[in-house]
Amino acid sequence: MISETAPVSLADLQVGLGPRIDEVRAQIRRAIAADFPLIADVNSHLMQMQGKMFRPTLLFLVNRACGHPDERAVRLAAVVELIHLATLVHDDSVDHSVMRRGMPTINALFSHQISVIMGDYLYSRAVIELVELADLKPLEVLSRVTNEMTIGEMRQLLAHDPLTFSEADYDLLIRAKTASLISGACECGALRASPDVRQAMARFGNALGMAFQIIDDLLDFTEVEAVTGKPSGLDLREHKVTLPLIHALPKLSAAQRADVDALMATPEPSAEQVARVVAHVRDTGGLDYAKARAHRLAEDAVRELDRLPAGPDRDLLRASVAFVTERRK
Amino acid sequence: MISETAPVSLADLQVGLGPRIDEVRAQIRRAIAADFPLIADVNSHLMQMQGKMFRPTLLFLVNRACGHPDERAVRLAAVVELIHLATLVHDDSVDHSVMRRGMPTINALFSHQISVIMGDYLYSRAVIELVELADLKPLEVLSRVTNEMTIGEMRQLLAHDPLTFSEADYDLLIRAKTASLISGACECGALRASPDVRQAMARFGNALGMAFQIIDDLLDFTEVEAVTGKPSGLDLREHKVTLPLIHALPKLSAAQRADVDALMATPEPSAEQVARVVAHVRDTGGLDYAKARAHRLAEDAVRELDRLPAGPDRDLLRASVAFVTERRK
Repeated sequence: MISETAPVSLADLQVGLGPRIDEVRAQIRRAIAADFPLIADVNSHLMQMQGKMFRPTLLFLVNRACGHPDERAVRLAAVVELIHLATLVHDDSVDHSVMRRGMPTINALFSHQISVIMGDYLYSRAVIELVELADLKPLEVLSRVTNEMTIGEMRQLLAHDPLTFSEADYDLLIRAKTASLISGACECGALRASPDVRQAMARFGNALGMAFQIIDDLLDFTEVEAVTGKPSGLDLREHKVTLPLIHALPKLSAAQRADVDALMATPEPSAEQVARVVAHVRDTGGLDYAKARAHRLAEDAVRELDRLPAGPDRDLLRASVAFVTERRK
Repeated sequence: MISETAPVSLADLQVGLGPRIDEVRAQIRRAIAADFPLIADVNSHLMQMQGKMFRPTLLFLVNRACGHPDERAVRLAAVVELIHLATLVHDDSVDHSVMRRGMPTINALFSHQISVIMGDYLYSRAVIELVELADLKPLEVLSRVTNEMTIGEMRQLLAHDPLTFSEADYDLLIRAKTASLISGACECGALRASPDVRQAMARFGNALGMAFQIIDDLLDFTEVEAVTGKPSGLDLREHKVTLPLIHALPKLSAAQRADVDALMATPEPSAEQVARVVAHVRDTGGLDYAKARAHRLAEDAVRELDRLPAGPDRDLLRASVAFVTERRK
């Protein structure tokens, strides 16, 4: 069903939402503003670094589709994106990442110390924003989600040993790391709806978020570097074990397995090593399996939309599922 | 007035509070419990590392003294201590500290990555606890305080250049870094009191917290290492500029100033270098000035207590001020 839809772009989903998304950016800018020069410097870098607003877009689409417009939607969307931003700043610091969205990370451009403090700054500002809304419901959703994300980050630290990291562990990881905030965004879009619609939207976001992360991890195997023509395989280079490899591992020949072990034992694997392991994972069905899993989750997500009134807004949420599963980058 | 009181110990302030402080520890243990083994390991280390519960003690004393007992006092005290713990975990990570309260820090014992994630875990748990209390008031106080502390941490990063770091900067630093949470603890003890008592208790905590940090910084100059008999001067070793040095700087002779500059330019200053600078700061009145400043703040704090009904509980709060100014470690 999903695979029959035409490729969908994020711009398709955001048609008509441009002014609201601009408002989200303005709200974030206001919420994080600081007199303190160092924080103002980091903020202006962060504002340039901002992403495509996928989570705010979902919140707006859910809010329209569930038929209970919430006048707080822009502020809620801004808080969700702010929490996302805080998480990215700490993740980059934990991972020692140097680039994010084509720009240097806060830890790379400023320092590791500044990125730890800035993540705390952004998150505590998000809580202040939520308190100003004077409603415990979004606070309840987003404080739970934020805590789940920290547990996801802890799980990520353990996702470097293919012998012990199972598909069940992987599911827990992507649920906590990625799906929880996407689910929280969808749930925050449905706070004015009935409890069963609200819960359905939380489940929709959870399935969509898990599919999103599986596709992300799959693209890491299939994306090809422009210059070398070889798979980029960044996760493999960093010894991060994801679904395609987890599925392939028990099916590998002894020789193939030796290549995986060698890669995992090499601090900086070569492009050839990475390409060889990608080929083994492909040959033993790891990529197909991950794709099929993402599609099953996408179908779960679409099923939750049955709770919503039929119409163009529900169709856009359906299209957001297609966007996630069909995206090429 | 303060200097006339007899030396007060923390145990004096905590008389009769033992069971409540045990409850605070139990509440913290419950709030941070996790199924995830790595988090459980870090938690059990943190529980051993817990401090003397100065902030919970103040919250209890204020709550009793202002005559509006709050049945949530134990949970509020646990959240305040939990936020304090989260802050310490990130501070140690930012400062690369290896010891805290006689035990290895989380970053030293586990890793820097784990301490960043654990700080986030603890803080998001604190927010969840506050949301469960279903009252926006403590959330409003403590989210503001947490954000102020992150700004304090940023200020701390800049407190390494004696030429640019003024007493006004120092005041802003200690207010944000230390006084804000102590003020928040006192304010949370008075949430059921009238607005003017609540504000007076916030101001009491602010003055007390600033005095607390000044004495802390002063002790760094005056404490003597057991083995060497020389001043420990840990802040000077780490090139942290605090009030005694700020006050002394413009009064130093050229030769004395050269010693300070040399220390600041030495990555790991010797015990002799530190002792020499301590002597210069003492000789130019930096220690006396800091002590007098702490005493003035203590008097400000005591004055705020006039808003409370007279009685043994108010006397204990007065004693808490004496405890802060008279403490020797």
